[in-house]
Amino acid sequence: MAPLSTNATKVHEPRILVVGAGFSGIEVAKALEGTRARVTILDRHNYTLFQPLLYQVATAALSPADVAVPIRSLVHSANVEILLDEVVGVEVESACVRTSSGRRLGYDFLVLATGSRFNYFGRDAWASLAPAPKSLTDAIEIRRRLLLAFERAEMCEDDNDRQGLMTFVVVGAGATGVEMAGAIAELAKATLRRDFRRIDPAGARIVLVEAGPRVLGNFDDKLGDYAQKTLTQIGVQILLNTKVDQIDDEGIVAAGRRIEARTVIWGAGVKATNVAQWLGQKAGPHGKVQVKEDFSITEHPNIFVVGDAAEATGSDGKPLPGLAAVAKQEGQYVGDLLRRRISRDQTHRPFRYRDYGTMATIGRSAAVADLRGFRLTGTVAWLLWGLVHLAFLIGFRNRIIVALNWLWAYFTFQRGARLITGPLRQADG
Amino acid sequence: MAPLSTNATKVHEPRILVVGAGFSGIEVAKALEGTRARVTILDRHNYTLFQPLLYQVATAALSPADVAVPIRSLVHSANVEILLDEVVGVEVESACVRTSSGRRLGYDFLVLATGSRFNYFGRDAWASLAPAPKSLTDAIEIRRRLLLAFERAEMCEDDNDRQGLMTFVVVGAGATGVEMAGAIAELAKATLRRDFRRIDPAGARIVLVEAGPRVLGNFDDKLGDYAQKTLTQIGVQILLNTKVDQIDDEGIVAAGRRIEARTVIWGAGVKATNVAQWLGQKAGPHGKVQVKEDFSITEHPNIFVVGDAAEATGSDGKPLPGLAAVAKQEGQYVGDLLRRRISRDQTHRPFRYRDYGTMATIGRSAAVADLRGFRLTGTVAWLLWGLVHLAFLIGFRNRIIVALNWLWAYFTFQRGARLITGPLRQADG
Repeated sequence: MAPLSTNATKVHEPRILVVGAGFSGIEVAKALEGTRARVTILDRHNYTLFQPLLYQVATAALSPADVAVPIRSLVHSANVEILLDEVVGVEVESACVRTSSGRRLGYDFLVLATGSRFNYFGRDAWASLAPAPKSLTDAIEIRRRLLLAFERAEMCEDDNDRQGLMTFVVVGAGATGVEMAGAIAELAKATLRRDFRRIDPAGARIVLVEAGPRVLGNFDDKLGDYAQKTLTQIGVQILLNTKVDQIDDEGIVAAGRRIEARTVIWGAGVKATNVAQWLGQKAGPHGKVQVKEDFSITEHPNIFVVGDAAEATGSDGKPLPGLAAVAKQEGQYVGDLLRRRISRDQTHRPFRYRDYGTMATIGRSAAVADLRGFRLTGTVAWLLWGLVHLAFLIGFRNRIIVALNWLWAYFTFQRGARLITGPLRQADG
Repeated sequence: MAPLSTNATKVHEPRILVVGAGFSGIEVAKALEGTRARVTILDRHNYTLFQPLLYQVATAALSPADVAVPIRSLVHSANVEILLDEVVGVEVESACVRTSSGRRLGYDFLVLATGSRFNYFGRDAWASLAPAPKSLTDAIEIRRRLLLAFERAEMCEDDNDRQGLMTFVVVGAGATGVEMAGAIAELAKATLRRDFRRIDPAGARIVLVEAGPRVLGNFDDKLGDYAQKTLTQIGVQILLNTKVDQIDDEGIVAAGRRIEARTVIWGAGVKATNVAQWLGQKAGPHGKVQVKEDFSITEHPNIFVVGDAAEATGSDGKPLPGLAAVAKQEGQYVGDLLRRRISRDQTHRPFRYRDYGTMATIGRSAAVADLRGFRLTGTVAWLLWGLVHLAFLIGFRNRIIVALNWLWAYFTFQRGARLITGPLRQADG
């Protein structure tokens, strides 16, 4: 049996190591299929995750497998191999990557596509108190907490405890927070409405807390206003200009006011993974790595950073947003660049982000879409949001299954994955 | 807010406590919907599990939510409430049940429908070394171990280790063991076939170890022979008359021979949950509780045991098998009996098991069915198996989703839930 290819050093078979199999990493690898490069994709998970729908796993609408596809099922070219491992550091001088299992993997070209994680702004202890929907494990944990809160409220004999169990705080009114708050409201007020005897789930209190002055601050004001109005209509209480000062097992303190809430979900901003630290580079805003026009880094033309970990700027000079579309296009660009480089094609094509717009969903028949200034709200935006997300989902099976789950949910108000898995009681219970 | 109904004592509203929401418990509760009884269903989980398809979760074909339905979505009558809790004992004298959360729940009638678990025949340490597909947690853990074994083999530099990683032992050649072994063979030899670079998953060794002399010993000999032949054809090695003496992290010892296998799955026989112990009754074979003709127990006409925990006999005097159909019919019977009893209807109807047959699936286009002596094998039995299981699945959504997953799997040889969740490394890794 051959040794791990990344330890081999054949000049005519450049070793390309792609770390992270998200939107950008998968595109890099796909662009390099069938080339003479020996490509290795390294990821902590055996699947690539469709993060835009992860909040639906967290709110019991979809199953984990509906939004995750095995990496191995996506790349079948003999020159691409996949390793299930986790990077812990990069040795730039010796051109190799260290992993948590103790491997050292050499590379001729390194692509770091490790994405972002939620930013707790230095309050790392909050991560377990207020999980964020970033990984499948997070999403399943959030689902467990949401559903368990209603179960515990049903069995609770104390009015104050019950009120705390039936209060749900979502921190951050960006797209993630808006989607989570909207979905929790629908879960409580529609799905679970008839399911309890002692509590009225429709009476659940859902509070969306935002430090800034607006809902969906990254969107056009009209769309933010629409989201705010719609969330209020479906029963979400919105607190703007309200910074969270403290989170504990029983609730939060925000702008000096205490809110008793046993379930707190975090959705306030992301920061890059440890790429800057690995590379010994100074981290930019949100921990991102400053990249050159071709996504390589200063002094290391063979190391590329793409996706949420890269600080790239658009043609307008503004930083590109942390969107799936951006990550995908960056991955395609660097994959194509490497493909040409290893075939000694010297043509230079600058990166240009094709902006098709941004969208966020709020709830049933309610979404916002900003298609390069052409703005939509309501049912039309919601249908468009659904179609676009089905189109970008990976895999025929997942498209069909998700579409059916949505249709079923639309007509029945039910959610198909209402399972509490993991420990029956929370640590504090 | 009213106190927990089970603490109330209104004579005209008898309190019926149903412990366990499996096939029999759900039927008891449904039969009592809309009556004047105050019914409480108590279960450790918030869902009822369709165990016959659990092996498909364990082998990455289906998602957990496809075989599990929230209990609350099944029972909507105002007189039935659901508690998420775990029974730890029964106080027969004071007619109350103790739970792990410290509750004491009184009852006028108690129905124990807590089912069975896999029997490790006193070797409890084997439970973590060789998990059995009984709960969703077990199934997800088995899936993790199966998929991770191939990932680790792909990265393994040592020939012996690799061989151990690519050897899968299934203990017990009853329906569970046959279904698991067949599904693992298909996973390795079809689904994963093209997905690795260093290993050939088709070369995986799958060993089915059976202490008795036959495969599917509970079935007709011809059906057992067919199963044995088919399993051998799809690459499963069958060791009959081979008792497992030892299991450790690295493999098993069976009939004095050591087999290096990092993944061992248990499927050898079940035993009843702790019901006999709770009731202070002498446990019968497999820990079951001897019940009277109406499923009540001696000296306690208000306590019933149904499903896998009950030792009931058919009209032929033989013990009834541990099948979903048996559990369901027993639950219907006791639910109906209680319904009549609380309406002071004295008519007596003896229980009669309607035997529609037994089935087991082996793999693609291969199953066995014994329909009261009318025996089927091959594609016809397989199609029948699929239709019957779709029909008995709970919920329209699940039927459609499972049917689509099966169609997709049939045509693509893929499996829709190939996710490794939980810790990346096994305890021994």
